[in-house]
This record gives sequence, C-alpha cells and structure tokens, in this order.
Amino acid sequence: MNTSFSDGKEEKFKRKAISVKEGQTRILSYVRRSETERVPLPEAQGRILAEDVLAPHPYPHFRRSGMDGFAVISSDTLGCSAETPVFLEVVDEIPCGSLPSVALVPGTVSRIMTGAKVPDEADAVVMFEMTESSESQGRAYIQLKREIKPGSNVTPVGLELQEGELILEKGRRLSAGEISVLATFGIYNVPVVKRPSVAIFSTGSELLGVEEPLQDGRIRNSNTYMLASQIRDAGGEPFILEAIADDLGTARQKVQDAFELYDLVVTTGGVSVGDFDIMADLVAGDDVEMLFNKITMRPGSVTTAAVKNGKLLFALSGNPGACFVGFELFVRPAIGTMLGIGDPFLKEIQVELGREYVKVNNFTRFVRGRLELKEGRFVAFPAALDESSVMITIKDSDVLIVIPPSSRGVAAGEMVSVLQLPGSR
Amino acid sequence: MNTSFSDGKEEKFKRKAISVKEGQTRILSYVRRSETERVPLPEAQGRILAEDVLAPHPYPHFRRSGMDGFAVISSDTLGCSAETPVFLEVVDEIPCGSLPSVALVPGTVSRIMTGAKVPDEADAVVMFEMTESSESQGRAYIQLKREIKPGSNVTPVGLELQEGELILEKGRRLSAGEISVLATFGIYNVPVVKRPSVAIFSTGSELLGVEEPLQDGRIRNSNTYMLASQIRDAGGEPFILEAIADDLGTARQKVQDAFELYDLVVTTGGVSVGDFDIMADLVAGDDVEMLFNKITMRPGSVTTAAVKNGKLLFALSGNPGACFVGFELFVRPAIGTMLGIGDPFLKEIQVELGREYVKVNNFTRFVRGRLELKEGRFVAFPAALDESSVMITIKDSDVLIVIPPSSRGVAAGEMVSVLQLPGSR
Repeated sequence: MNTSFSDGKEEKFKRKAISVKEGQTRILSYVRRSETERVPLPEAQGRILAEDVLAPHPYPHFRRSGMDGFAVISSDTLGCSAETPVFLEVVDEIPCGSLPSVALVPGTVSRIMTGAKVPDEADAVVMFEMTESSESQGRAYIQLKREIKPGSNVTPVGLELQEGELILEKGRRLSAGEISVLATFGIYNVPVVKRPSVAIFSTGSELLGVEEPLQDGRIRNSNTYMLASQIRDAGGEPFILEAIADDLGTARQKVQDAFELYDLVVTTGGVSVGDFDIMADLVAGDDVEMLFNKITMRPGSVTTAAVKNGKLLFALSGNPGACFVGFELFVRPAIGTMLGIGDPFLKEIQVELGREYVKVNNFTRFVRGRLELKEGRFVAFPAALDESSVMITIKDSDVLIVIPPSSRGVAAGEMVSVLQLPGSR
Repeated sequence: MNTSFSDGKEEKFKRKAISVKEGQTRILSYVRRSETERVPLPEAQGRILAEDVLAPHPYPHFRRSGMDGFAVISSDTLGCSAETPVFLEVVDEIPCGSLPSVALVPGTVSRIMTGAKVPDEADAVVMFEMTESSESQGRAYIQLKREIKPGSNVTPVGLELQEGELILEKGRRLSAGEISVLATFGIYNVPVVKRPSVAIFSTGSELLGVEEPLQDGRIRNSNTYMLASQIRDAGGEPFILEAIADDLGTARQKVQDAFELYDLVVTTGGVSVGDFDIMADLVAGDDVEMLFNKITMRPGSVTTAAVKNGKLLFALSGNPGACFVGFELFVRPAIGTMLGIGDPFLKEIQVELGREYVKVNNFTRFVRGRLELKEGRFVAFPAALDESSVMITIKDSDVLIVIPPSSRGVAAGEMVSVLQLPGSR
C-alpha cells in the first residue's frame, strides 16, 4: 500500500486507527534477525547469544573430589567401626590441578584436595575430620572408624552436563551465569547478534539543545537522549543525529541518508495533526510503505511506522510520555526481534490495581505506574500525572498499567494487566 | 585486631564464624563513598547520581497549549450556545517554539499548536474540531457554539515541577526517565560517582586459561569472568589480573601491588582449609586487619574479608556457586556503598516456597532458585543442583532462597525470604 500524504493537512486527518497488537504484528513481519559477530568473552556481557551452545565435553570432565580428605577404595572400610578401626596407608598426595601419581591398591589411600581428580581405583573420599593420622616406620597411615559408602564426596563425570547437551540457547542475554558457563567450556570468542544501529532524529524548531540557555516558549530536546537510553537498554546502538527543522526537503534528505547508514530510524515529534507536522509527508513516496499512522492507544495515538527497502522507520510523538510508551510498545520489540530474542515484548502480568483509575477513553490507555509488593502480591499504582506531555513520572515508573477502553474506569482492587518496564529493579 | 595465620594449617582451622549480617556490617563500616566526576549526558546511563539535582526552573516554564486549536479569552464565550454562537477573529498564529506576536484583546483569538506558548491574555485553548472557520472581508473568524471553561487545555507553569524542587536524589541509578529529566533541565555534564576499580585474582594452579585446551584433572578459570560480569553489573570497573599460582611470596607481592592501583581487591579460590591454600597467609601482616574468615552460611562459609590502608580485600571461594553468592552478599554491597546507593543489599521479599527443600544444615543456606508468578503471587523454586561446586544453575537463577538453619528443612507452601538477584528481568 503506497499512500501519499503530501497533499496537505486535509489528507493528514484521515488516519485509520489500528490496535497495538495489530501494529506490532505489522512491524514484526518486516523484521529480520541481524547478523552474527564474534566478541571476546570479556565484552560479551549484555549481548544476545546468536547460536545454540552445546557442551563440548561433559562437566565435570573428571571425577572430582568434593572435600579435602583421602581418596579411598570403599570396600577397604567394610565392617570397620570404632571397635575395629581400619588402618590405610597414605601413598600419594593430589593437589588441585595435579593428577594421581600412584595407582591405588587395596589398603592404600591418597591425600586429596577439594576439586582434584579422584584416582581411578578409588570410589570415595573421606574428609580429614573423620580420620586420625599416624606414622609407623616412616610410612603415613590414617585410621578410619566407620564404613565409607561408595561414591561419597566424589562428583561423577557429567553431573552437571553431558557432552553435547544444550547449555545455552540462542537468543539468551548473557550475564554472569552465562559468562561463567562460556568460560567453563572454553568459548572465548562468543557468537552474538550484531547490535542494530538506530538513528534518532528529533523534529520541531521549538527544540533547544540541552546545553542552550532556556528561552521563552521553547523546550530542550530531551526525547533524543531518553530514546538513546531506551535503545541501548533494548540492545541497540543509538546514534543521535542533528535535529530536523520543520523543512520538508531537508528532512526528507536527512532521513533518506539515515536509511542508508543505519538499521532503523526513529524520529520524535512532528506526528500530530497540526499544520507544522512533516513526518506524514516524509514517509510518503513510492518506495515507502506505510504500516500504520494511528494506533488505538493513549498516549501516542498518532504513532507512525513505515518501511523502506526492508528498513523500518518509527515516527514517535514529541510528547515525552507518548514517545516513551511508543518506543516500549513498538521499537523495543523490533530491536528485540532483530536480536533474535524469543519474546521481544514487555512482560505482561496480571496484578491488582492499588488505586482507582477514573480517566476514561475510547482507546486503551498505557498508564505509567509502580508495582508495590504487599504480602507476596504485587499491586500496581498509577502515577499521579500520566498525561502524554508529562515527563517527570517516567523515571518513577516500573510498569505500564493497561486500562482498557471503558466508560467507567477501573476500581481499586480490580485485576489489571501491567507491562513490566525493563531495567526496573 | 591483627591476626597471623602464617604458622600453617593448624592455625587455619581456627576460624570463628560470624553471621552474614555481622559480616556485612563489618565490611560497610570501612567503606567510604567514592569521588564525584562529571560525564556527558550520553554517557551517564547506568551511572549513579552523585548529587541531589534541584529544578533550576519550573517545568513547564511557560503556559503551554495542550492542543492544536485556538487560544481564547474564555469570558468571550460566556453565554454562547448552538443557538447563539460567538464569532471571534483570528489575529495570530503561534507555532511550537514561537512566541505570540500580537496581544489578544476581547473578541480575538490566536491559532496555536500543541506545545506552543499560550498568549498572556488568553486563558484557554479550544481544539480545532470544536470550531468552524469562516472569512469575511479578508479577515479570518472562528465560530464557537459552547462556553469554554477557563484553563481548558492550558498546562500551567510548574505543573510538573516548581523551581528548586528536588527532581533527582543522589544515589539514584540513571536510566531513560532520569536522563530525560536531566536533558529537560539542561544538565549535560552530569555529576556521577566514580566507578570503583576492582582487581580480580584467581588462585590455584589447577586453573586453565579459557582458551587453553582441556586437560585431565584441571578446569578452566571461569570465576574471574563471572566476577567481572558481577562487578560491572554492580557498578564497578573490573580488572582481571594474572592468576596467582600457589606461591605465597609472589601472591603477596601481586596483591600488595593491586592494593596500590585499585579500589578493591577480590580473589577467588584458595580459601578452603586444605594444605595448598594461601589466602589466609596472604592477608596476614601488621598492616592488614582481618574482618572475618568464616561466615555461618552455605555455600561459601570460608569467605574472608580484610582491610588494608582503608581498602577492602575479599577472598571468595573457588567454587563457582560459593563465589557467586559471596560476591552478591558481600562485594556487591561494598561497591554499592562506594557508589552512594541508599540500600546496597539485594532486595529481600517474602514469598511462598514452591517445592520442599530438605537439605538441612546448621548454617543458613542461600539456595539458587527461580521466582514464578502464579495468580499475582510469587512462588520460589529451588534449583535442582545447588551444591557449592555447581556452576550450571547460576544462569537460571533470579533469586537466592534463604533457608534458615533447621533440622527439618522447609516444606512446600511455607513462606521464605528470597533475595532478588539483579539483572534478572
């Protein structure tokens, strides 16, 4: 479907609203997983694994002592007790990382450290504290006063993993536990998915640079920095480009250039239906397919998405609240899918609403809010200020509370869906 | 208290165990907040704010239009209705970022865009859709058929924040919402706490480098990479140093050097009571104060902490599970306190235990586990393999389940404390 919105304002008012879910589906149908690259293990943290990793060897790969003690042949201890102790000769000493130097025969034991390889002939380790040491004619002995069960304190080969077992599935985010696994199996050059590069444009001549002094009637450009942070958090690499002034020709050229250089393009501002908005014009053209330009949601109903040569453009609202929500609902899943994450959407859980929400709307509302834990249950509280234009409550929110279209709102105590925002701890 | 453990193994067995809480208290009494540095806003993500930030101006700092429409003097619409509409002359047009160019007088209105400054004389904005436009003798008019309430669609100055209000408290971690606030208020050089530099040593000659081929009886050095990941996640900057072989002289010199260069020193391995352990010797010396060398916990009971010239040394177990837990319970809070985070400990919540835990112990157990959400309630499930030596279950855990010392274990359905692991999403 090629649409043209270039014949001006009248045309722009004609927006066919679709649901968030439909919008997400349209977007993801255009998203392909990014390429694989290899990074050294110390740089792999936070990256997404690009391939399944199978265990190249069992783990542990040798029978490991679980104690500091003596490796014994358990049958040597059969029938022994406090009254009839058994004396066994210490013939070897096996520190961690060394191999046994003597083959055990019945009646002999090896001193062994935790983590060291148990001699093949031994089938148990008895801890130091259960033994009494003695010497006789220059030879060392231990005395044992109870039977030792076969297998005691010996970690068998493959206890944790068998060779060939799936240890890490692709699409997994790498943190401490995964990195430990990769190191254990000697995987230093880790196959990860390339971070999608994301160009960020702000539009609107009302925007001041962050370092510019305040001016009456103008606001500072905060959305680009917020978006850069969201993009990084989602696993992309943000590139803040020069703000686009309200000039269609220049804007179009800049966006064209960005499509060449980056994997995704995100703009903020200029998507409302006012006279001075240009995003709709911008995505018009034979080679651009409009995916949607209105969503049945608040805030951010005029969020727009388009695709050009297989690359996605998202035109998010200039209102901070709407820009934030638009990113989380549409751009994050796109980046997540490019990264090969299995479920790229915000995690949805059902919780109790802690305070009534009475603002009604014919569109679904995504209300910033906070989860509180009460007696093992989560309760969601909507932010005091949740207007699209409000910036200050974003920082205090860890969920988006989903308020369905309704003429009466939702009462305190009713169950609601909430979408958990990432990075909330 | 200066202690010497250099007279060998006998001495090493004498360890006085203290509780986790007491250990944490001892550590934190030596921790001072790190210095402040300023970083550019785009690099501030994930950093910890070093100073309170007060609003340098109200926000919004001008009366902002919440709609595309017309700025009106609401008293002009008094008594108007469908039968008796009012006609008002359009005398100005105010795009976003521009200032009104005409002072309104009764009977006149300004066309205005969302986000633009409302003229001082106007006290309401009426949306386009509620008006009918007309022209007469070259002048533009709008027709209104209902009264407009004062204040409609006008965001007052300071709605979100008053000048001087606390907007971000020190100790706060900066993510998208905070970054948006900083940008909005023009704070580009952000005061953040310096990342503590943390030296990591592994000890033990059994360790192979990650890239070395597997050898019988030896394991790869995975803890240093795991620790580096945990340190980064906690907000520190990890430095993986050469592994220390089991040679006391070299080890002591390397650790001395690290104390000079780094803010914290963490070692892994060599803290058990076997013959070949050297950490206890290593922290002996007149200038080293031992804080503890045994904790009443599993895994990791032989975790050691010492302080030298105000700098902390943590000697963690070489067992992956114990090393992981030791870091989370002791090193993370130390780094967090250096960063000025208010509550540097893992967040503790009370949840139901999903499956019985029968392994008993006279020490408190910190069992790796997973939280699952069931009908708005969290339920904690212990990992199948939770031995100290087990590495593979770390990656699948998002909590440590606290099992108090007990002779009977904990039944399914009982409430337990769990410590939430960071980075779990």
